[in-house]
Amino acid sequence: MSTIVNRRDLDFMMYEVLDLEGLLKTERYGDYDREAVDAILDLSQELGEDVFQPFAAKLDANEPIFVDGGVESIPEVGEALAAYKEAGLFGTAYDYENGGMQLPWLVHQALNGILTCANGPVVSYAFLTQGAANMLAACGSEELKAKFLPKMVSGDWYGTMCLSEPQAGSSLADIRTKAEPVGDGTYKITGTKMWISGGAQDLSENIVEMVLAKIPGSPAGVKGISLFLVPKVRVNDDGSLGEDNNIALAGLNHKMGNRGTTNCLLNFGESGDTLGYLVGGENQGLANMFHMMNEARIGVGMGAMIAGLGGYLYSLDYARNRPQGRHLHNKDPETPQVMISEHADVKRMLMAQKAYVEGAQLLIMYAAELIDKQKVASDPEEVKRIALLLEILTPICKSWPSEFCLEANKLAIQVLGGYGYTREYPVERYYRDNRLNHIHEGTWAIHGIDILGRKVRMADGAALKILNAEIQATIAAADGHAEFAAYCAQLNTALAQIDETIAAVGSSPDPALGLANATVFLDAVGHVVIAWLWLKQAIAAQAGLANGGEDTAFYSGKLAACQFFFRYEVPKVNTDLELVASLDSTCYDLTADQFVGS
Amino acid sequence: MSTIVNRRDLDFMMYEVLDLEGLLKTERYGDYDREAVDAILDLSQELGEDVFQPFAAKLDANEPIFVDGGVESIPEVGEALAAYKEAGLFGTAYDYENGGMQLPWLVHQALNGILTCANGPVVSYAFLTQGAANMLAACGSEELKAKFLPKMVSGDWYGTMCLSEPQAGSSLADIRTKAEPVGDGTYKITGTKMWISGGAQDLSENIVEMVLAKIPGSPAGVKGISLFLVPKVRVNDDGSLGEDNNIALAGLNHKMGNRGTTNCLLNFGESGDTLGYLVGGENQGLANMFHMMNEARIGVGMGAMIAGLGGYLYSLDYARNRPQGRHLHNKDPETPQVMISEHADVKRMLMAQKAYVEGAQLLIMYAAELIDKQKVASDPEEVKRIALLLEILTPICKSWPSEFCLEANKLAIQVLGGYGYTREYPVERYYRDNRLNHIHEGTWAIHGIDILGRKVRMADGAALKILNAEIQATIAAADGHAEFAAYCAQLNTALAQIDETIAAVGSSPDPALGLANATVFLDAVGHVVIAWLWLKQAIAAQAGLANGGEDTAFYSGKLAACQFFFRYEVPKVNTDLELVASLDSTCYDLTADQFVGS
Repeated sequence: MSTIVNRRDLDFMMYEVLDLEGLLKTERYGDYDREAVDAILDLSQELGEDVFQPFAAKLDANEPIFVDGGVESIPEVGEALAAYKEAGLFGTAYDYENGGMQLPWLVHQALNGILTCANGPVVSYAFLTQGAANMLAACGSEELKAKFLPKMVSGDWYGTMCLSEPQAGSSLADIRTKAEPVGDGTYKITGTKMWISGGAQDLSENIVEMVLAKIPGSPAGVKGISLFLVPKVRVNDDGSLGEDNNIALAGLNHKMGNRGTTNCLLNFGESGDTLGYLVGGENQGLANMFHMMNEARIGVGMGAMIAGLGGYLYSLDYARNRPQGRHLHNKDPETPQVMISEHADVKRMLMAQKAYVEGAQLLIMYAAELIDKQKVASDPEEVKRIALLLEILTPICKSWPSEFCLEANKLAIQVLGGYGYTREYPVERYYRDNRLNHIHEGTWAIHGIDILGRKVRMADGAALKILNAEIQATIAAADGHAEFAAYCAQLNTALAQIDETIAAVGSSPDPALGLANATVFLDAVGHVVIAWLWLKQAIAAQAGLANGGEDTAFYSGKLAACQFFFRYEVPKVNTDLELVASLDSTCYDLTADQFVGS
Repeated sequence: MSTIVNRRDLDFMMYEVLDLEGLLKTERYGDYDREAVDAILDLSQELGEDVFQPFAAKLDANEPIFVDGGVESIPEVGEALAAYKEAGLFGTAYDYENGGMQLPWLVHQALNGILTCANGPVVSYAFLTQGAANMLAACGSEELKAKFLPKMVSGDWYGTMCLSEPQAGSSLADIRTKAEPVGDGTYKITGTKMWISGGAQDLSENIVEMVLAKIPGSPAGVKGISLFLVPKVRVNDDGSLGEDNNIALAGLNHKMGNRGTTNCLLNFGESGDTLGYLVGGENQGLANMFHMMNEARIGVGMGAMIAGLGGYLYSLDYARNRPQGRHLHNKDPETPQVMISEHADVKRMLMAQKAYVEGAQLLIMYAAELIDKQKVASDPEEVKRIALLLEILTPICKSWPSEFCLEANKLAIQVLGGYGYTREYPVERYYRDNRLNHIHEGTWAIHGIDILGRKVRMADGAALKILNAEIQATIAAADGHAEFAAYCAQLNTALAQIDETIAAVGSSPDPALGLANATVFLDAVGHVVIAWLWLKQAIAAQAGLANGGEDTAFYSGKLAACQFFFRYEVPKVNTDLELVASLDSTCYDLTADQFVGS
């Protein structure tokens, strides 16, 4: 079996649970059919297995190094990205008008997911480039787009996003990087940016850094932030590369995982002028950056899910081939050992991984399908409806896989035992890679506050109502299937409890106390969403079984995973929401000196 | 503040919650008083901060390497162990009759805990030696003890335990290493041992490997396993070192964490005769090994707890000194940033760490005190009572910290954000180190089956009854404190549910199904035990507050942590036990082909 993708499951989600077929019938995506999608995924899988996966462990052990003010990566990174470019995959994310392939986002994500599972740190360079380019396409002037976009779409130049500074991580209000107008439409950028993935590398001809900075005289805090396009190498009017733009690599961060992607401290305008171009309006930087951030946040959730998938597939393959011990009732040491996939607790750990990972996978694919549906919708009301649904799902897409697919990675190590703890097997690497995802693109806490403090109330609670309606539609579809009745009841109970919890939080005399347990709320609502998506999968699996065919094991496994999620996981929601609704102030009341005493 | 120990808390646990003072009044430990204990802990802390901690990151980045059939460690490892030996600390674990210091185990653990927090992989060598030597002291012949024990007690020779083989990890019934009697009382050992921590190193004059092997003709399975002492270098009758004993280092394992301790694949009797000595009777190997294993298992739990403590203390110190963001109600970006310890979710993450780590710490110290009490008890009934209590607590001591203090490490990284994810800060190292603890000395699953399949039923349920009685004694002590009434009620409810769950499992027509969710049971019972120990701490803290003095913040922090555990954690017990009692077969029924389809 492949350890980087389960194609059967991908097909199940795209064609049996979601409606990719429907998308492919629209004008926007009409150039593609299922056969074309298959071919693209075949290509991606081949590239993943033949080119990306073989050096993933080597790259982890040989992270990029700082040499003479620059970066050196092992040659395989550049070779793999060249193959990716050669295959035309840099262009999958863009519209025809920008020179792209205009693939459905759903397919774009699926193909990149396969490669991410094979070697995530390499794909990061493409992911960052696609994010930066899509933001430029959305917010940049025609002139700026003409100058920079084609080279990004082609994969000749890479992109980054530069938000954080050493003193300003989560708190963007406190950034200090300055952008002073030169008078010719450009700005002199000075300051230091931290945690810049791909901020320096030896892989592309140029790097397009998307930088948040403040124009002198602009308002304090986030209201005075503007967005600038700052190339590593200046670009002449004829499109050729000009002078160096004086972005100095001040240092590389040495991470626990995800080591193959450089992560940098950059100094702008230190040794000479660093010139940048305003993207969008002055002081509109944060809003414009969020064009990229929401996409990036779903992308982070995808990365977390894929790391979980890698661990799951590898540990499953291992468990089916590793003999160890005997069934509990067999005390005869002379009988042969059984495969560890026969042991109850190994089954439990594999099932938990399956439930977390495939649940998260559908969440990410569902969000991708929404992005596509939004693009093909003609009714403005429908566009707005989808936008609100995406708003409320984004913090869950980002955070739930970061929490629970990391848990899956932990279990994958446990399945392999001592072997899982060594660098000779990939499961510990996935675990290390995945730990990042709860931190970047907004921490766990930030998404907790985002959902409970903002998203559930936005547009008068409309986003939450739309989500509820989607869930009710699935419950309605489950009607008549007696085996799903208990799940539907659990979902309805949980939905009612979510409403009660929001009301309780809203009635808190101190709003900050109401939000003190927001991360607990975020996890709990995430569980309800994943439970709903498991019910969706179960309904599709039931239909698949009813249609007969050879996939009985696959479909019955889906039904079992749904059952697992509702029996092992959903009951936890009640406890968590009760805690949030109780406005418990145990932690909130603490003072810093109470932890260890004076 | 120190980031390797909270001495105030250590004192609180030893003198206010437990009764070290009482132990120091017994004949066995009468040579020590509180002042002497303070001096030993001072010494340990000084050694930890000055010698062990400074090179912990360097050792992690420069793990021992395989050179010319041997191992090379960075010189600091040998220097630190020499300082440990120089300070006399190798001898803390042994009785006077074996040349040791005969310290209470409670103090022995506390002082080694401080050093483990400073640099765990270095202390492992001492820990393994002490375990092997204590087993030799308990089971070896006088002749064998005379030859090997003094050099181990002095720290000139180190010890190991060699159980696993490449094909036999958890399943010791399947080991193949052979021991053939030579006729002169020695045995020729042939075979391969895997995962041997400290199995080869360049640190001690000799290595005493304690090896499980089978004598030809012995019964199949675990009943035919014997234990052998196998020195790396043979020892002449006059105690001098003789010929090499032909134990070949076949390879080093490259682990995710805990990198400073070598972990080896060893070949015995490959290039020449490897001679060993029988320890204890023929075919008694497993029982004898368990003299060392139970101690080792509590030691693993201690290591897990200490890794959690290291992350907790570091992240707390960081949070109290890192300015970032403002209170939620303050929208003015021109006001100064606050320390992140002011943010509600950071408080929650610090509090969760405190609750997990300090809960686990008391568990480990309570178990250590039981070991001491057992040694000073004169009444055989009391000795038996303590033995049973230790039996039922051992799987919890091993597993609960491995699960929840790893969770604490995850949160420590989150508190530091991006910095926490880099190797420039120690929190990610603790996280990597800690992941091992759920695997070695019996996996999570093995301890689940141990407690639910064996320990709760042993001696007609006597062990569980003794545990219940201990908990009831604490509940009785809480009587009259109205603020603890709710906690007592929660504990009583949980204890009743544990009994019901065991009954339900016992009534399963298929005993293997009854045990299918044993790990869930293990975690839940662990939660109840930790809750009880938090109540113990709260009672002591209340007494401390009533006595007045300057420690108000410390004591009120303890009360808050107890409240946190009962409000945030104990409610989860109900859900988990309901699942176990339901004899849910979702995972148990799965076949290997249902996971991803054919």
